[in-house]
Amino acid sequence: MRGVAGIVGGGVIGGAWAARFSLMGWDVRLYDPDPEAERKMAAVLANARHALPMLYDVALPAPGAITHVATVAEAVSGADWIQESAPERLDLKLKLLREIEAAAGAETPIGSSTSGFKPSELQEGAAHPGRILVAHPFNPVYLIPVVELVGGDGPTLARAEDILRGIGMRPLRIRKEIDAHVADRFLEAVWREALWLVKDGIATTEEIDDVIRYGFGLRWAQMGLFETYRIAGGEAGMRHFLAQFGPALKWPWTKLMDVPELTDELAGMIADQSDAQSGHLSIRELERLRDGNLVAILRALKARGAAAGALLNAHEATLRRAPAEGPPMETGRRIVPVDWTDYNGHMNESRYGQVYSDAGDVVMAHVGADAAYIASGLSYFTVETQVKFLAETKAGEAIRVTSRVLEGAGKKLRLFHEMRREADDALLSTCDQMLIHVSLETRRSCPPSAEVLARVEALAAAHGAKP
Amino acid sequence: MRGVAGIVGGGVIGGAWAARFSLMGWDVRLYDPDPEAERKMAAVLANARHALPMLYDVALPAPGAITHVATVAEAVSGADWIQESAPERLDLKLKLLREIEAAAGAETPIGSSTSGFKPSELQEGAAHPGRILVAHPFNPVYLIPVVELVGGDGPTLARAEDILRGIGMRPLRIRKEIDAHVADRFLEAVWREALWLVKDGIATTEEIDDVIRYGFGLRWAQMGLFETYRIAGGEAGMRHFLAQFGPALKWPWTKLMDVPELTDELAGMIADQSDAQSGHLSIRELERLRDGNLVAILRALKARGAAAGALLNAHEATLRRAPAEGPPMETGRRIVPVDWTDYNGHMNESRYGQVYSDAGDVVMAHVGADAAYIASGLSYFTVETQVKFLAETKAGEAIRVTSRVLEGAGKKLRLFHEMRREADDALLSTCDQMLIHVSLETRRSCPPSAEVLARVEALAAAHGAKP
Repeated sequence: MRGVAGIVGGGVIGGAWAARFSLMGWDVRLYDPDPEAERKMAAVLANARHALPMLYDVALPAPGAITHVATVAEAVSGADWIQESAPERLDLKLKLLREIEAAAGAETPIGSSTSGFKPSELQEGAAHPGRILVAHPFNPVYLIPVVELVGGDGPTLARAEDILRGIGMRPLRIRKEIDAHVADRFLEAVWREALWLVKDGIATTEEIDDVIRYGFGLRWAQMGLFETYRIAGGEAGMRHFLAQFGPALKWPWTKLMDVPELTDELAGMIADQSDAQSGHLSIRELERLRDGNLVAILRALKARGAAAGALLNAHEATLRRAPAEGPPMETGRRIVPVDWTDYNGHMNESRYGQVYSDAGDVVMAHVGADAAYIASGLSYFTVETQVKFLAETKAGEAIRVTSRVLEGAGKKLRLFHEMRREADDALLSTCDQMLIHVSLETRRSCPPSAEVLARVEALAAAHGAKP
Repeated sequence: MRGVAGIVGGGVIGGAWAARFSLMGWDVRLYDPDPEAERKMAAVLANARHALPMLYDVALPAPGAITHVATVAEAVSGADWIQESAPERLDLKLKLLREIEAAAGAETPIGSSTSGFKPSELQEGAAHPGRILVAHPFNPVYLIPVVELVGGDGPTLARAEDILRGIGMRPLRIRKEIDAHVADRFLEAVWREALWLVKDGIATTEEIDDVIRYGFGLRWAQMGLFETYRIAGGEAGMRHFLAQFGPALKWPWTKLMDVPELTDELAGMIADQSDAQSGHLSIRELERLRDGNLVAILRALKARGAAAGALLNAHEATLRRAPAEGPPMETGRRIVPVDWTDYNGHMNESRYGQVYSDAGDVVMAHVGADAAYIASGLSYFTVETQVKFLAETKAGEAIRVTSRVLEGAGKKLRLFHEMRREADDALLSTCDQMLIHVSLETRRSCPPSAEVLARVEALAAAHGAKP
């Protein structure tokens, strides 16, 4: 479903919520009393517009409008989803929630981005407390999929899950409300330990970051904590691992029994070390680096169908549309992702091959040589391609691929693809692709099924020769 | 440098050390009294041999031999690096370290994989305490690059860093010894918190893993903790972020002031949840999934030149060799990585393009159109490729590419590449690649420098026509 999102509070988090909803085709009405709100929203949206579409190998829906409005009521009345991301002050949040309730539809979920308050605190004095829930996201909201859901009645939670999945997120119901929900408890525990390590001169901020990103951060991006330890336990299993690990819990390994005083001196030490580590880059530059890295990691997991990449594949499947028969058939519309460019600053030649391989897959699926057909032991293999590179294209540019079936007879299938830039319709490249139908058992050529052959022949007759 | 590694203790950690050294061309002598040691080592080596070479876009050196020996002395005498990975019992480790010292060269670094003991504890009674240091790695040692170095005198640490960098790792000196070094303090803090969350029924093991891998795990794989928070602080900077975060440290967010009792009941609850989450997969299958995901994430970071990927690029540069002039020139030797295969189970056609693009780069660098030349504003762009796909190749197979300069005159450079499988020398594919010399300023064709042109012409004269 797509609809209208009412966003109350448009800072780093609220603005990124607005960007994600808009880029997934929702209209957004944004309320933020900050006179700088429009400028800040534009900066977040620029980052989001650059990065989010790169996660998908298909075009996203046309983006919805983001309208800045002057009152809470304008933002939320008639909205299908409401998200409050005001500063972490309970009195302020309660005041806004009462204003939201007064103007919102009675069954509209009202999510709060709070990390510090429990839903029972937010629901105090509400007319319909069950529709108020914590929907706690992670920065950058337009790339990180998980959202912790806490509180809310059954119907509200079900609606919330539907809506959040629809914009590509991974809603996760927390079973009981506790302070800080789940993820922030880990982050808080790690943060306290990190403060001790810096304070005691054991490691600098940069060394701590390196221990994480060259170490367990790589593990956690794909398996998390328990599955990683399950493997560490080996064949003897999780019980064995726990038995080994048990005594260590009593060791004086962490200083977390105690909280370090965040004196000016300690704060200064951390800020100085952080400047030495990252001060040569502006926050905008760091954001771009972070987003590019996240896109590349998420796309790597997507190619594997693993962890957050499995989620992307499932969401992408909902965005794919069957192509019209043409000629020519539209067999691809997408953004050039940041991991496709090379040292010349343009899309690497091998990725043209990727685009055409994907376009060929669309034609195959269209004639019935789809996943089920391949699972039955039959497929088409490419035997030759001839690619002409006519103009460059860069990361972030929208491209469109159209395809014609030039020949379709017996085991042969010959396609001709054209790739154009959306912005000016410039022809970037062409590809002449010859495929042969094969048995996946013998790995040798064989005739296609009668149905597939009939559809291939019909397309060839309709499409004819190269343009 | 390459040399001989003496590995004492060949379990999950010691075996993976042996595998990494061997795959980087070191000879390994392994001592482990476990009668199952050879079988276990073979299993670890199979995983490592499959995964580690996929991280590199060049062939690794020929692997060194792994020899199982019957005594500590045989393992360590004459070794250039010694690594102890015995079970975590101080009396056992001290006994082994004394045996190692008696047989090892006086200046050979002796690393211990211990997570539980400090170097001062391991050095007790040593003849040369300064050469004993903690070298604490992370599972799987053949893929995760970081190694915490603690203790050891200056020359030992410098040698250790050289050797560990040489096998592709990221040694990180910890400034003072403390219990559990650095990374395990974080892991311990998170683990305790996770136990509380499961015990109190807030989230299951799977939900906790999902919060991490769909959430902050993605951030930590590329930036770690402090740089992530630096961005969260926005333009106001790290001091502002700390000022905001400060009060939260006093909130009762974590239960870590207290340690949960790891009763049989809690251990059973965790083991049951872990079985429900991952029990449909064997540990071997989980290891393969983990390794494939890590390879894909690391390769994604490598393409970005970011975090652990920057390390891989730097290490790979040390492994590249200039090609002989031929004909034909050898322009590629590598393993097909796991992220290059598609639903047909073989290398996707677009990756053939990658192989040829890389081979073209090798020829370009050879004629002087290298990184410095490109930085000066000149390069060759591919304008047309014709690829023939003759046979399939699968992830893990070793391939070799040879290239000929068919034409080299004026702005034109025409290459012909052949890709063969190493195992049987089967011709897998060919590529006819036409390039045009361009100015990166005007993005239009222009003549190459006289030096580059002369080398291109000489190669074309020597290489002649297609084979």
